Amino acid sequence: MQNFLMTLCYDGSRYSGWQKQGNTENTIQGKLERSLSTLLGQTVEVNGSGRTDAGVHAKMQAATFRAETELEPERILSALRAVMPEDIGIMSLDYAPPRFHARLNCTGKTYVYRVWNSSAPNVFERKYMCFISEKLDAHAMRKAAQRLCGEHDFASFCSKRNMKKSTVRRVDSVDIIEQGGELRFEFRGEGFLYNMVRIMVGTLLEVGRGSLAPEDIDRILEARDRSAAGLLAPAKGLCLQEVSF
Amino acid sequence: MQNFLMTLCYDGSRYSGWQKQGNTENTIQGKLERSLSTLLGQTVEVNGSGRTDAGVHAKMQAATFRAETELEPERILSALRAVMPEDIGIMSLDYAPPRFHARLNCTGKTYVYRVWNSSAPNVFERKYMCFISEKLDAHAMRKAAQRLCGEHDFASFCSKRNMKKSTVRRVDSVDIIEQGGELRFEFRGEGFLYNMVRIMVGTLLEVGRGSLAPEDIDRILEARDRSAAGLLAPAKGLCLQEVSF
Repeated sequence: MQNFLMTLCYDGSRYSGWQKQGNTENTIQGKLERSLSTLLGQTVEVNGSGRTDAGVHAKMQAATFRAETELEPERILSALRAVMPEDIGIMSLDYAPPRFHARLNCTGKTYVYRVWNSSAPNVFERKYMCFISEKLDAHAMRKAAQRLCGEHDFASFCSKRNMKKSTVRRVDSVDIIEQGGELRFEFRGEGFLYNMVRIMVGTLLEVGRGSLAPEDIDRILEARDRSAAGLLAPAKGLCLQEVSF
Repeated sequence: MQNFLMTLCYDGSRYSGWQKQGNTENTIQGKLERSLSTLLGQTVEVNGSGRTDAGVHAKMQAATFRAETELEPERILSALRAVMPEDIGIMSLDYAPPRFHARLNCTGKTYVYRVWNSSAPNVFERKYMCFISEKLDAHAMRKAAQRLCGEHDFASFCSKRNMKKSTVRRVDSVDIIEQGGELRFEFRGEGFLYNMVRIMVGTLLEVGRGSLAPEDIDRILEARDRSAAGLLAPAKGLCLQEVSF
């Protein structure tokens, strides 16, 4: 049994997310498993470094799979590229150490959320940004973002109710970068809860609009209740930018 | 009667081109005319600096229109932006001198043709590039491109048969720029014939593949016959980049 690691990127616009689900088979994981199973003539299970929601993109996702095959990684890569749709790109595929696992060995992730904060049009990147024409206060959002950094119970920033596992996570950094009409939110951490990045962005946007103060973040964290935080920001602005091991 | 000039950009993927046509009303000009006619309560005719084919994009197109209105340009701009689809962006709209006409006063155009010349995936710009994984000889293409520059009869590079008007044009420059996996062809000139840029690209690509030599360009120009030139390059790689007056 060989263990393989691949890195890939995708435009999530038309997919129901990374993870395969009962009947809705329009998922990235589902597409990869079906293609690899056909190519290698055996049932292949693909494990991603983490799930991305419906409509969320990835510039770098990593996934491992095991298979009984003598095909060289290069051959599998070119065969897989040939059958994948245009909106899923396989960047690399190689042997991995036997016990290496994309999720269990993942040590950090960077997510980028892009907001087009201008009334000027942005036709060519419209599928990868959330549009907000109202001017946002970046300074206030940066102050709020600092309060999200560090280790906290992020239960207020998680969509899943009755979460049995721990909702404590460590956010290493949140940078808010202004580039032309764009506001780019960069989140680094070991791992994030379900919808956590999009709820953090939705909450920061309310700070940017002035309907929440930076200090409100402390109260929201303490509440440990989803309803205390802001809205879920739209999926299309979010991208899994990098995964590290 | 006021005269207005607007600049706009569009993702041409789902349109039948700039120019309105009998029944197929899925054109940029058609969309603009219908929206402006409704907004201003009168029949408005929009004149572009030139036509773009079905599937061709524009980062900057310019168009003029006349209307009897007391609405300020700023008001028309925001009303128009509110009704335009996401893939057509109005960048500016202002008063123009009475006799100013986007096509007749246009003094130059820049078209960019983008080729993704790599076997690596390019998921996020797939709609704006033509994909060719086979390695192309940029040096040979640059030599061929030089032979296209200057004033020539470009009849071999025009799709329209029985062209009654002159097919003589002046190409000011053709630059071929390599950036990462991308090959970017930049064409500058006062004006181009129907499909001329795409046929020039198709011909240069045959030089890049080695099936034509740079010197063959002279023979193709002399033939004054469409069948002497190369294939028509796909529309999606082409973008009207800039218009000058």
